[in-house]
Amino acid sequence: MSKTPDPLRTINELKELRSLTGNEDGAQRVAFTPTWVAAREFLRSRFDGLPVEMHRDAAGNFWATLRGESDRELLMGGHFDSVPNGGWLDGCLNTLAGVEVLRRINEEYNGRPPVTVRVVDWADEEGARFGKSLFGSSACSGNLDMEEARGLVDKDGIRLPDALREVGIEFERAKDCGSELKNAAAYLELHIEQGPVLLDLDLPLGAVLGTFGVERHAIHFHGQAAHSGSTPMNRRKDAFLAAAKMSPEIYRIAERSGMGVCTIGSCTTKPGIVTSVVEDCRLTLDQRHLDADKLARMHAEAREASERFAAEGGVSVSWERIWHIAPAPFNADLVNFCDEAIKETCGVSHRLPSGPLHDAAEVCMAGVPTVMMFVQSLHGISHNKIEDTREEHLAQSVLAFDRLAERTMAWIKAQA
Amino acid sequence: MSKTPDPLRTINELKELRSLTGNEDGAQRVAFTPTWVAAREFLRSRFDGLPVEMHRDAAGNFWATLRGESDRELLMGGHFDSVPNGGWLDGCLNTLAGVEVLRRINEEYNGRPPVTVRVVDWADEEGARFGKSLFGSSACSGNLDMEEARGLVDKDGIRLPDALREVGIEFERAKDCGSELKNAAAYLELHIEQGPVLLDLDLPLGAVLGTFGVERHAIHFHGQAAHSGSTPMNRRKDAFLAAAKMSPEIYRIAERSGMGVCTIGSCTTKPGIVTSVVEDCRLTLDQRHLDADKLARMHAEAREASERFAAEGGVSVSWERIWHIAPAPFNADLVNFCDEAIKETCGVSHRLPSGPLHDAAEVCMAGVPTVMMFVQSLHGISHNKIEDTREEHLAQSVLAFDRLAERTMAWIKAQA
Repeated sequence: MSKTPDPLRTINELKELRSLTGNEDGAQRVAFTPTWVAAREFLRSRFDGLPVEMHRDAAGNFWATLRGESDRELLMGGHFDSVPNGGWLDGCLNTLAGVEVLRRINEEYNGRPPVTVRVVDWADEEGARFGKSLFGSSACSGNLDMEEARGLVDKDGIRLPDALREVGIEFERAKDCGSELKNAAAYLELHIEQGPVLLDLDLPLGAVLGTFGVERHAIHFHGQAAHSGSTPMNRRKDAFLAAAKMSPEIYRIAERSGMGVCTIGSCTTKPGIVTSVVEDCRLTLDQRHLDADKLARMHAEAREASERFAAEGGVSVSWERIWHIAPAPFNADLVNFCDEAIKETCGVSHRLPSGPLHDAAEVCMAGVPTVMMFVQSLHGISHNKIEDTREEHLAQSVLAFDRLAERTMAWIKAQA
Repeated sequence: MSKTPDPLRTINELKELRSLTGNEDGAQRVAFTPTWVAAREFLRSRFDGLPVEMHRDAAGNFWATLRGESDRELLMGGHFDSVPNGGWLDGCLNTLAGVEVLRRINEEYNGRPPVTVRVVDWADEEGARFGKSLFGSSACSGNLDMEEARGLVDKDGIRLPDALREVGIEFERAKDCGSELKNAAAYLELHIEQGPVLLDLDLPLGAVLGTFGVERHAIHFHGQAAHSGSTPMNRRKDAFLAAAKMSPEIYRIAERSGMGVCTIGSCTTKPGIVTSVVEDCRLTLDQRHLDADKLARMHAEAREASERFAAEGGVSVSWERIWHIAPAPFNADLVNFCDEAIKETCGVSHRLPSGPLHDAAEVCMAGVPTVMMFVQSLHGISHNKIEDTREEHLAQSVLAFDRLAERTMAWIKAQA
């Protein structure tokens, strides 16, 4: 590597994109809207003068391809779409860093790198409009549930297939884009952390071990309503008591799991009046772990605890699975490269899992060796206009991501 | 006492009233409705042929008076009104038992007992239609909040004063009925327990120590919303965790208090979505005790615990009082008489507090020496068509209530 990318250019492009597609409430690049189309046009224009082929695939993902000596491909991905009133970096940092790295590679190898290099901008990562995330990447990986997606409607009653047709995408053909991955040899994604881990450690960058698997359940405790005045404490079948005991318990379960997280996000009580013992209590429980066995154990421990608490209180309990996804552990070689690239750039690295899902999880599950790099988020906050990252950290992220790309190209080449 | 009351007559009257004013869903004697008026007419006809004066007071309470040698009065009270789909005994057992005891006294003393004996049927004990209980007795005690009551509306938008006018009651004069208590020397009320204590002890009857005081509060925990996947457990400010710890804690607080009860009746969570740590959690807490100091201590302990749990979890907590009422401990002499009357009738008695409020609490707070007698409730259930009591227990209750009345007359006479 004699050439280096220009991180300031990336930062300036991010700011330009913010002006173009945001307002005082934050980023407004909701997928398939005119603002998103304008953002895509901005992205397309980044490649002016570069020897790349560009096209949009059957699911609306945007691809820019720099042909190399080998057909085997290094992919760098991101997403230009945002939630309404979103942050300025979430998703588009990845895409624009990919553009900058492609520019550096193009210059370094005079338009003919050792392997083919592609930048992909996934369509509708956020799922902000139709409530279902990872549309473009799951169509590409083959995991998209067509039946479910076909029925999605936005708040105005518009169906997803109709919204897609408005921007020239034929829903029923979306999965044809799976062919885009046929020569993929590695997938890299740089992303803001969206959590507080790197901030707490005062580190700019981290190598991501994979995306958490998720077990998401509703837990329903059923007891007996009884008068708050006339029912002695030892005669109660209090559904809330059993449910409440779950809250400290999930903290213990998460601690035992090593790296997992558990969240009770909602609690509803019936009859829910001040003068009655709670008859029905429904909790939602979201559990995440990078290791499938440990995730299964966290789930089993929560279930056992719920049954113990129910038995203690003379109530019954039942579970209903809302959603689940397997963990997507990233490629060990690529995680090492990511770690090394970060150390070379910043002197120190940290390995951490990703709690939120990303397009990288879909690509990983499609069998493509994958890794992500995280850059510190200020406030540990995202999906909000106050989402932010220090410019020096953004600059370091582009440099480290470039080093990771170079190592990965060499790794792909060596496999050929 | 050479005469005895006829408990079978009371049971038959209760059954007749059930046929007259109930249906397959239960009792329908909602106050101020035509069915309630019909029930009152049934009550009035019970006194046919007896030398009593009858009238309805300014709040709609019905009084039947058997003049005695002394103007000092023994009162026996109940309420003929029911909740919609209510039980067959709740309230009217008291009134009809009072009728039967008055009959016995009339016969015993040839129409001239040592003290004046009165049966009162309170208006709108349940508050089923306007959401505010103890209308007639609180008007009589002077505790009725006229401003609040004036604004009450039923589900059809009809105002309480207008509903009262329909049945010939002038709302603004309601408190004039306070004069009814000017010669009252004692108040007795027989009632179904509406709880499981006597059932659990397998006892027919109990002497009531008083009605619980109530502290009713909303507790609001405020933490911080955070992503369920990206936020490590030790970084969370989980409002639900702090709130949930309150549930087992109130059981410990109630146990330490000796005889109190504490109930968390509802829990609401915000944002209340499966992928977010709970930012806001609101509980309602209802605490009851017969002893004012212990009630205050239960409240203080709950508050201290909430502050400890909030501090442990990095969240804040605030309290808002919804309602409170002081305990109404009954007259010690009358509690003893009640206990003795029960022992004479059944061989064994039990002293217990009343969790639910009753008209007796109002009369007690007005300064009239008061006691209640409870008869066992099957299922520990009331305000439901399945509310029931064994007929042998009903019969025993009438006999014991009569013995209590006799003792109380002697006690009043001795004070003269």
